[in-house]
Amino acid sequence: MGVITLCTDFGNKDPYVGIMKGVILAGDPAAQIVDITHEVEPQDIREAAFTVHDYWRYFPSGTVHVVVVDPTVGSSRRPVVVSRDGHFFVGPDNGIFSFIAGRASDIRVIENRDYMREMVSPTFHGRDIFSPIAARLSCGLALSLLGTKITDPVMLDDIYPVITGNAMTGDIARFDHFGNAITNIDREQFQSFVQDRPYTITINGLSFTSLSQSYYEGEIICLTGSSGYIEFGVFQGNFRARTGAHKRDPVIMTVQ
Amino acid sequence: MGVITLCTDFGNKDPYVGIMKGVILAGDPAAQIVDITHEVEPQDIREAAFTVHDYWRYFPSGTVHVVVVDPTVGSSRRPVVVSRDGHFFVGPDNGIFSFIAGRASDIRVIENRDYMREMVSPTFHGRDIFSPIAARLSCGLALSLLGTKITDPVMLDDIYPVITGNAMTGDIARFDHFGNAITNIDREQFQSFVQDRPYTITINGLSFTSLSQSYYEGEIICLTGSSGYIEFGVFQGNFRARTGAHKRDPVIMTVQ
Amino acid sequence: MGVITLCTDFGNKDPYVGIMKGVILAGDPAAQIVDITHEVEPQDIREAAFTVHDYWRYFPSGTVHVVVVDPTVGSSRRPVVVSRDGHFFVGPDNGIFSFIAGRASDIRVIENRDYMREMVSPTFHGRDIFSPIAARLSCGLALSLLGTKITDPVMLDDIYPVITGNAMTGDIARFDHFGNAITNIDREQFQSFVQDRPYTITINGLSFTSLSQSYYEGEIICLTGSSGYIEFGVFQGNFRARTGAHKRDPVIMTVQ
Repeated sequence: MGVITLCTDFGNKDPYVGIMKGVILAGDPAAQIVDITHEVEPQDIREAAFTVHDYWRYFPSGTVHVVVVDPTVGSSRRPVVVSRDGHFFVGPDNGIFSFIAGRASDIRVIENRDYMREMVSPTFHGRDIFSPIAARLSCGLALSLLGTKITDPVMLDDIYPVITGNAMTGDIARFDHFGNAITNIDREQFQSFVQDRPYTITINGLSFTSLSQSYYEGEIICLTGSSGYIEFGVFQGNFRARTGAHKRDPVIMTVQ
Repeated sequence: MGVITLCTDFGNKDPYVGIMKGVILAGDPAAQIVDITHEVEPQDIREAAFTVHDYWRYFPSGTVHVVVVDPTVGSSRRPVVVSRDGHFFVGPDNGIFSFIAGRASDIRVIENRDYMREMVSPTFHGRDIFSPIAARLSCGLALSLLGTKITDPVMLDDIYPVITGNAMTGDIARFDHFGNAITNIDREQFQSFVQDRPYTITINGLSFTSLSQSYYEGEIICLTGSSGYIEFGVFQGNFRARTGAHKRDPVIMTVQ
Repeated sequence: MGVITLCTDFGNKDPYVGIMKGVILAGDPAAQIVDITHEVEPQDIREAAFTVHDYWRYFPSGTVHVVVVDPTVGSSRRPVVVSRDGHFFVGPDNGIFSFIAGRASDIRVIENRDYMREMVSPTFHGRDIFSPIAARLSCGLALSLLGTKITDPVMLDDIYPVITGNAMTGDIARFDHFGNAITNIDREQFQSFVQDRPYTITINGLSFTSLSQSYYEGEIICLTGSSGYIEFGVFQGNFRARTGAHKRDPVIMTVQ
């Protein structure tokens, strides 16, 4: 009983995600299909990359993760499967697997039409390529049957924080439903930069010189969130609404 | 392990859909339940009819499709099961199955109270009639046990494009999450009308004289979408927001 | 094949719910996971309490209901499992189980770290405590292994209507997706108060002296909804938008 997760920017209103599930169940009737989200901001590849990085490791080995944020569907961008640590990632090669592909054991371009739907629409590879391939992988299909091995997946180049002198500069990668601002600076990056020195974290004019443990501890707080990233929040409130922050606003850590 | 799909206008906030799933699982513990959407515009029977037409064919034979957009629940409108091509459609007889019922092999009014919940609320047939019936059908119940066979299902009369002289007039059936405008004119209707003649498609003052293959090909484009209907979109943008189009805006194709 | 339901205020955009499902499936690969809603108003414990009260009874005996609306996660508030009528309820002890706990057969604080994830984040007990415990319960774990039995669960004190002389005063507990206003006055409370006497129900200046059966019967109507509570609605319209009503607006029933 294999697990197949779905992460798209298709929204929850249209029948597109349901159609993908129909195709998956036609190929693997026992699949455990899990929706991660279908509300990635439309065509925001960077947000998709951060989202995938967050959830995949909590699933059992063997899980197939389908990710479809695909603004150039129908162009020459390649459909791929990335294999890493026993998990499979299926989607377009446009940077959505930037946090995954660097440590992949195998990456294949999907070329073999035997495993696609008979008619492949130029606008819906989620239905015609990625879903049937996911069902096959969940049933044990060997990666080598899909197509050519590649070593040059598309990687986004602006997803990691940058250190210049005594400052590390990251940004707001995404906001969550509660209005918390989640940065692209994780616990390890923070600690190896700061070590035991005093530090200041600034975001849009607000400054913090220590991290809280939980939201209930303060009013506007800075803490290491559940996904391991530095984040900003407001207890029983909404950081985004209260401060007017935006995605990609710079987050600067300075030490003396 | 039968598949049961759910399509409603109940939204995702209330517990109503979850309650339907509880009733289904009480009747068929092994059911594979698939949400298509719960965001059909409230009480919009026409939109529901187009949505059902889009997804059902991608599911395996034997699938039970529950559709509940039911503004007159509790009135004398009939609860029905439509059987077509090995699929079952369960819901109110108010036009939501207009694209399905014309080729049905059997249509039954649900009359047998043995298969309903003991208490039938006048406001929630999704829970008390349609869900328990779906679970029974998924387990193999014979249609003939449900009730009287009928041949006069309610059919919407404004869902197909109309040809007058050298013009075919359709409309915008729905918008998708990306703001693409999906018409009620499908590829076959388009081709059999246009044949090899030059044509012009107009929508709200915009004109197109050819179809694109993919969204990335242009700015404002007209193409045959993944569901086979003519649609309008904006590459990395939102046609609905950009043009201020509305559902039912006329789409006119003229040939010379 | 155990059923596990999820009800949270996490929204459908973030990967948090998907992560919980990954943890559940790692513990119980055959779990039937059902989303009730993830759109409880953020941190609204009272709304969560009413929601749980609505859905649990429709699920099969043995179902595990995970409920996470948890503003003080990481504080000393207790994680608990409530057992009632063959169902299990897992979540924070902050009042969300106010309608359940009064008739519980057993309530346990979750103390045994053997059944939690190895690292417990102070901000995401849904992932690190409640999901792994739910998977274990679904597989048959004995409640007594979790921790200490308690008899003092947190109970909200403002959830029931109050009778003063010839008036019973309740309020709007929540709005549903259609804009119907659902009160905290149920059919039994209404009938035992009113008996056979004439009555008037007032809400924000509107008055009703009888109940309708179905929405299609009137324009602005008052009826007993599918969950057994008195509610207000507009046929093919939206009561909330039309009247400007708010949650907790008083609903007053008077008899002569």
